[in-house]
Amino acid sequence: MHVHFLGTGAGLPSKGRNVTSIVLDLLQERNALWMFDCGEATQHQILHTSIKPRKIEKIFITHLHGDHIFGLPGLLSSRSFQGGEEPVTIYGPIGIKQFIETALTVSQSKLSYPIIIEELKEGIIFEDDQFSVSVKHLDHAIDSFGFRIDEKDSPGPLLVEKLKEVGIKPGPIYSQFKTEETVELPNGKTVRSKDYIGEPKKGKSIAVLGDTRTKEEYVTFIQNVDLLIHEATFNKDQEQLAYDYFHSTTTQAAKLAQKANVKKLILTHISSRFQLNEVDQLLLEAMQYFEETAIAHDFYSTSIK
Amino acid sequence: MHVHFLGTGAGLPSKGRNVTSIVLDLLQERNALWMFDCGEATQHQILHTSIKPRKIEKIFITHLHGDHIFGLPGLLSSRSFQGGEEPVTIYGPIGIKQFIETALTVSQSKLSYPIIIEELKEGIIFEDDQFSVSVKHLDHAIDSFGFRIDEKDSPGPLLVEKLKEVGIKPGPIYSQFKTEETVELPNGKTVRSKDYIGEPKKGKSIAVLGDTRTKEEYVTFIQNVDLLIHEATFNKDQEQLAYDYFHSTTTQAAKLAQKANVKKLILTHISSRFQLNEVDQLLLEAMQYFEETAIAHDFYSTSIK
Ligand SMILES: [Zn+2]
Ligand SMILES: [Zn+2]
Repeated sequence: MHVHFLGTGAGLPSKGRNVTSIVLDLLQERNALWMFDCGEATQHQILHTSIKPRKIEKIFITHLHGDHIFGLPGLLSSRSFQGGEEPVTIYGPIGIKQFIETALTVSQSKLSYPIIIEELKEGIIFEDDQFSVSVKHLDHAIDSFGFRIDEKDSPGPLLVEKLKEVGIKPGPIYSQFKTEETVELPNGKTVRSKDYIGEPKKGKSIAVLGDTRTKEEYVTFIQNVDLLIHEATFNKDQEQLAYDYFHSTTTQAAKLAQKANVKKLILTHISSRFQLNEVDQLLLEAMQYFEETAIAHDFYSTSIK
Repeated sequence: MHVHFLGTGAGLPSKGRNVTSIVLDLLQERNALWMFDCGEATQHQILHTSIKPRKIEKIFITHLHGDHIFGLPGLLSSRSFQGGEEPVTIYGPIGIKQFIETALTVSQSKLSYPIIIEELKEGIIFEDDQFSVSVKHLDHAIDSFGFRIDEKDSPGPLLVEKLKEVGIKPGPIYSQFKTEETVELPNGKTVRSKDYIGEPKKGKSIAVLGDTRTKEEYVTFIQNVDLLIHEATFNKDQEQLAYDYFHSTTTQAAKLAQKANVKKLILTHISSRFQLNEVDQLLLEAMQYFEETAIAHDFYSTSIK
């Protein structure tokens, strides 16, 4: 599981940062990519990566501000010319359907694949045997949402050496250890499967919050995630500005990460008002409260451990 | 009068060419920029130029395919943060109003300036004492239009030396030569103004055609323009493809330029199928029929003489 930042700026594109888009790479887990937000020129950013748009399975939109959605019509249209055949599901606030449908209809874009558009409510919006995705309403100038993705624990591996030691040879019987509680051996003896199965592998968890003021009540929602992606539009001295514009400061995000006991925090949605050297300062501000912090830049990429 | 090519590709953005947008620089003539089409990431391209979005007075949309309009919502929204206060008029095919209004409403983008959206019909769509703009319907998969911009001739300069020679000294009387047919001199003598006015300056003309098959009947519309901007999505051997996809080849565009007696032809909307060295070949194909041809690339810019 990896995460790629395609755009890490706030509001307007600048030479240094494009507007928001993040890709969660689940190629190993399910041969799919999940995208979070799709600001203008996200498809252009992708040209400079190895990301394949046809692998995008789901797009989660945190909120409808232009810097988070204006790249959607282009990305969806181009995907038709990039081998896209599998369906894409788009989750976003009420209005996302009208936006996408109007753009595609007016431009007479005929997609080579089906799209499903689901407008958001709080709660669990997706669940299969691998992942669940839950949603929380945030505090922004317009409806804005946070997503929490939980990978389910996967069963431990069959302890092949241990099976051989007790004389159970490889064969169809091995699969019974994965599906049955007990297994009857050829010699008539019955053994417990769990004695021959290793430790289950803990699923990863990640939370991506849209633009928001920081609030204590988010703690439960993001509790213990392996990675929290949070905006930091303002620096530590701009709490009033952050409040007025429904955004967060570096230290507010860091304190939240600390309270929620997350493993790692990545700050994004960085204003172009901050020069490159000031970004180092932003990082220091956050690290004062939460050591495991990074500040994203365009094309920054990391593995979730 | 200058023209700047911001995007010169066809269909999809590529690393080499962005999707279509052209800016006509009328800063000297009227302190304004006129834009033709606005593909996705046009505002990003502008970041690499000296173009000021707040100077954009008019945006002409040739047709509603995504590669010609998906940059509009972002450009319009960002202009509010770039000192935009003067109104912008947008001319485009039926549907452009719904597209823009939906994008701005859904994203709750509040512009700092008024926009006027005018849906296109053939004929003269704008005229003032400096310029007229006329529109012709073209032959594309969806409604597509060509724009012809004619600058009006400007009166010649006052021949100050000649006035001085006959003893007419600089003063308020000079302005009478510009507004009156005859002028009475202080000595009682009456002279004809036109004897003291130089040759009128011929206005420039430029035609920008949207995506289209090339048609003989466009000749009258573009007759004698100083600059014709025409698409060339296909090469000389791909006439059937061009026809099937409602586009033009290099030689079709060049022959049209030749028949219409234009001064200069710039080909754009170049497919990313063509490698850099093949683009030279495209140019040669066109030049066989029309010598004064150039092929645009992103950030190509030229003066209209
Ligand atoms: Zn934002
Ligand atoms: Zn096109």
